Amino acid sequence: MSLVIVGSVAFDTIETPLGRRERIVGGSGTYCSLAASFFTRPRIVAVVGRDFPRRTLAFLRSRRVDLEGLKIKAGKTFHWEGRYETDLNRRTTVRTELNVFADFRPAVPARYAPARIVYLANLDPEHHDLILRQFRRPALLAMDTIRLWIDSRREALLRELRRIDVFFANDEEARLISGEANLVAAGRALLRMGPSLAVVKKGEHGALIFGPDGIFGVLAHPCEHVVDPTGAGDSFAGGFLGHLDRVPRRTAKEIHRAAVYGSVLASFTIEDFGIGRFLTLQPREVEERYRQFRKLSSF
Amino acid sequence: MSLVIVGSVAFDTIETPLGRRERIVGGSGTYCSLAASFFTRPRIVAVVGRDFPRRTLAFLRSRRVDLEGLKIKAGKTFHWEGRYETDLNRRTTVRTELNVFADFRPAVPARYAPARIVYLANLDPEHHDLILRQFRRPALLAMDTIRLWIDSRREALLRELRRIDVFFANDEEARLISGEANLVAAGRALLRMGPSLAVVKKGEHGALIFGPDGIFGVLAHPCEHVVDPTGAGDSFAGGFLGHLDRVPRRTAKEIHRAAVYGSVLASFTIEDFGIGRFLTLQPREVEERYRQFRKLSSF
Repeated sequence: MSLVIVGSVAFDTIETPLGRRERIVGGSGTYCSLAASFFTRPRIVAVVGRDFPRRTLAFLRSRRVDLEGLKIKAGKTFHWEGRYETDLNRRTTVRTELNVFADFRPAVPARYAPARIVYLANLDPEHHDLILRQFRRPALLAMDTIRLWIDSRREALLRELRRIDVFFANDEEARLISGEANLVAAGRALLRMGPSLAVVKKGEHGALIFGPDGIFGVLAHPCEHVVDPTGAGDSFAGGFLGHLDRVPRRTAKEIHRAAVYGSVLASFTIEDFGIGRFLTLQPREVEERYRQFRKLSSF
Repeated sequence: MSLVIVGSVAFDTIETPLGRRERIVGGSGTYCSLAASFFTRPRIVAVVGRDFPRRTLAFLRSRRVDLEGLKIKAGKTFHWEGRYETDLNRRTTVRTELNVFADFRPAVPARYAPARIVYLANLDPEHHDLILRQFRRPALLAMDTIRLWIDSRREALLRELRRIDVFFANDEEARLISGEANLVAAGRALLRMGPSLAVVKKGEHGALIFGPDGIFGVLAHPCEHVVDPTGAGDSFAGGFLGHLDRVPRRTAKEIHRAAVYGSVLASFTIEDFGIGRFLTLQPREVEERYRQFRKLSSF
């Protein structure tokens, strides 16, 4: 049981129709590891600046997130600023200050090397190799990406797709990478590009999972007041991979359950700004919502 | 067991990214009754002109659709022309020739008066009263609407919402009527406006069903080659109401099954232009896809 998450731990400034928050804690690695912490003891590889709040690190530790791979460097923490429109699927990046993340060349602690699952969250695909060389031979290699790399690193991205097992993309990214407008066609095209599992996330509409046994969909939990969609995708990945890390075999059934847990964790994340919801979220709430998903999907 | 569908039987000229068809048979009543015919013997109240093909009427009869309420009038059949963009959720009405539909004042055959379920498909809400006076006391009154009536007959529409049981709307219509951008909020707002059940259809993303027992979602069958989305919503209503008409009690479970059948029937409709798919669709195909939905929703 070991999941290593390589991603960003950052500050976000976020504006949604429900308000604005300045420099709150965010980052793909943060969301993903908090979500995964409900299933396993995730290990994180990331970098922050000296300005990063110690109480957040203490909180992550209290949630069983292993921080040996988190480097604290002189300088300022990665800071992203984004704005969501009334249609929460539309988001604009206002500013990106890479800061200490700019020359992030992750050093993976030796203790992490035998990881069973490795997740590369939104990293520059050119850096994957440097990271993966530091692992022995993960049973499952997963990655996510962002529009920036699709536009600027297409070749490296396509190369990385060929060697991974699980690819997470949102609908827009799936369309951009595959060149297919129809999402079902897009998902199938992604499979032909390498991964054995492609997870296409659709925000409020749930997700489609494409794999060797065909396609299945998972719904999103109906949420009337989406406070802040930031981190929903990373939380999905965390719930998904966290569950897969705790089960002995990745059967079709467990992959389905993993996707439902992904949707469950994402549904909590959007209920508050940043990682706010995780501060109080209890395992029994996660299980209760999972059971609700099961109840509502049986007919 | 009796479902009466009051709607249009029409000609459609349709352009989608996959082709163009001139004056093919369409209409809300046609799609809805064909879909419902897999579960019950739907009765239709509609009007066509003398130009309407007899072989289509023969086909409807062969599918157990009761045509006593279908009037053939001197003049031309209602003709709608529409165009879909690459994003198939976007459709533009190019032309609407009401023809014999312009002064459609439906006369409901006496034999239909004791109907258990009455469905008013996209009718001018000002005409509902005239129609409903001709029925005894249906156990279930359902309606759908279109943007035209939301824009031009808002008051009448809101009045009709107060007296119906089931309201079908697509996502755009639900938002326009309720004034809520969030679909969950929109669906809940619709319930407060009268109906005890609101079905919000989301095209490729399935549907959300709002009722006294809460909200549940149904997925859409993943379709890689959507040929023509026309009639998907009416087919959903037909599958939904057709199933409810054949079960003795409308329990939460049966409502869920009805929604899945709605999704199943809609998924067949979009596989061909117009009613093309219905020409060959067999009950065992419907049941097979239903079982597939069930299999893919269990985890």
